[in-house]
Amino acid sequence: MDRNKIIQWFREGSIAIPRVLLTNYKELGLNETEFMLLLHIHSFIDSGITFPTPEQIAARMTLSPETCMQQLRKLVQKGFVAIEERIDEQQIRSEHYSLEPLWEKIVRHLLKEPLREENEQEEELY
Amino acid sequence: MDRNKIIQWFREGSIAIPRVLLTNYKELGLNETEFMLLLHIHSFIDSGITFPTPEQIAARMTLSPETCMQQLRKLVQKGFVAIEERIDEQQIRSEHYSLEPLWEKIVRHLLKEPLREENEQEEELY
Amino acid sequence: MDRNKIIQWFREGSIAIPRVLLTNYKELGLNETEFMLLLHIHSFIDSGITFPTPEQIAARMTLSPETCMQQLRKLVQKGFVAIEERIDEQQIRSEHYSLEPLWEKIVRHLLKEPLREENEQEEELY
Amino acid sequence: MDRNKIIQWFREGSIAIPRVLLTNYKELGLNETEFMLLLHIHSFIDSGITFPTPEQIAARMTLSPETCMQQLRKLVQKGFVAIEERIDEQQIRSEHYSLEPLWEKIVRHLLKEPLREENEQEEELY
Repeated sequence: MDRNKIIQWFREGSIAIPRVLLTNYKELGLNETEFMLLLHIHSFIDSGITFPTPEQIAARMTLSPETCMQQLRKLVQKGFVAIEERIDEQQIRSEHYSLEPLWEKIVRHLLKEPLREENEQEEELY
Repeated sequence: MDRNKIIQWFREGSIAIPRVLLTNYKELGLNETEFMLLLHIHSFIDSGITFPTPEQIAARMTLSPETCMQQLRKLVQKGFVAIEERIDEQQIRSEHYSLEPLWEKIVRHLLKEPLREENEQEEELY
Repeated sequence: MDRNKIIQWFREGSIAIPRVLLTNYKELGLNETEFMLLLHIHSFIDSGITFPTPEQIAARMTLSPETCMQQLRKLVQKGFVAIEERIDEQQIRSEHYSLEPLWEKIVRHLLKEPLREENEQEEELY
Repeated sequence: MDRNKIIQWFREGSIAIPRVLLTNYKELGLNETEFMLLLHIHSFIDSGITFPTPEQIAARMTLSPETCMQQLRKLVQKGFVAIEERIDEQQIRSEHYSLEPLWEKIVRHLLKEPLREENEQEEELY
């Protein structure tokens, strides 16, 4: 039985976060809770759930579904997440979260700035 | 010049977070800010900086160095991070953060519990 | 235009490989080409393409589609990949690759063995 | 005892590979074995072993140490890996592998090319 659980962890795998996002989210105007909310959305999308409900997200966070909903709305307004509508072959309409705006923001932020020097110690190692 | 920046992002790479940690940190007793603090420590260790100062960590977070220090102390007390002392060949003593207690906690948590069913939808996809 | 390309790299992201798989594939009976083939399948599945053709896979590898096909068949026979059939709500049948057998193999392999000591140097660092 | 092994897998974690590297290594002039060799070097560096011996690398691959050595030399000649010399505070000289040339190559390759269309299906999903 334990074996099955362990297999499940391997199957679920890991989610990769670009280090530049981790070192720059603050300058993009995100706080830690917002970052985590985006990370959960990323993880849901990655698992094939492209439009998780506030309840589904809140179940993994220390936020209530209401707060989660408010935070989500704020992230959409501030331009970090988009809600996209798609119509499939059967003409069924569905909504999906997209993190495209986040990637755009981080790239714009990084290209505008001078090379960061904070990582001297890291660079020496590689 | 842009090219150098982009090369730097590739060099810095990504940090991998086990999905089970992302879906279970709340049940381990961590909130979002604490999770992010652990993630920053993980990222620093990974880059070869094994004992970042509260100032270094706070520079990447929306916390003041003082709050960061308090939170770190709390995480040590609650048994999520350990501070280890090492003595090198030149008999120089140094301190390092270790996330070993976090890995122990998550494994103990996962092995105790019955198989989680929340991921039905995900499982179907893989 | 370059900006769009860079955004695309962020969107495509990274794929996370468990380090134990990287250090143990040889003992599971896989060679480097087979490992890469599994990695490509993993990456396709992760992107939502759950049954890539030998042509799609071979386009990313230095193998011909024919060799790729043969190798795939061998991996199925040796029990590293499975082909699963699913029937959706419209009763449409489709086939999908599953890496479940690989996760099973690695977990069985790891649980059978005594603790590996090869990583002494690594462990000291963390 | 099993618990300790499982904790070890979490501690060892995962290594993140940029998807653009996975879909473009062939066009950079790398074959699967060479890619894996670079991946092993990446993993060693990441674990703090910055100059693994051909024996250490070969122990994880299906190559002999001699073949591994030859392949390494070829990768240095072809400009995918560099060997850097460093002198520490005690004036002790040491050598280290650097994947900087690989990151340079991939970025140059990606910036030169028109936007790749192969991922249409993936893009729709995100």
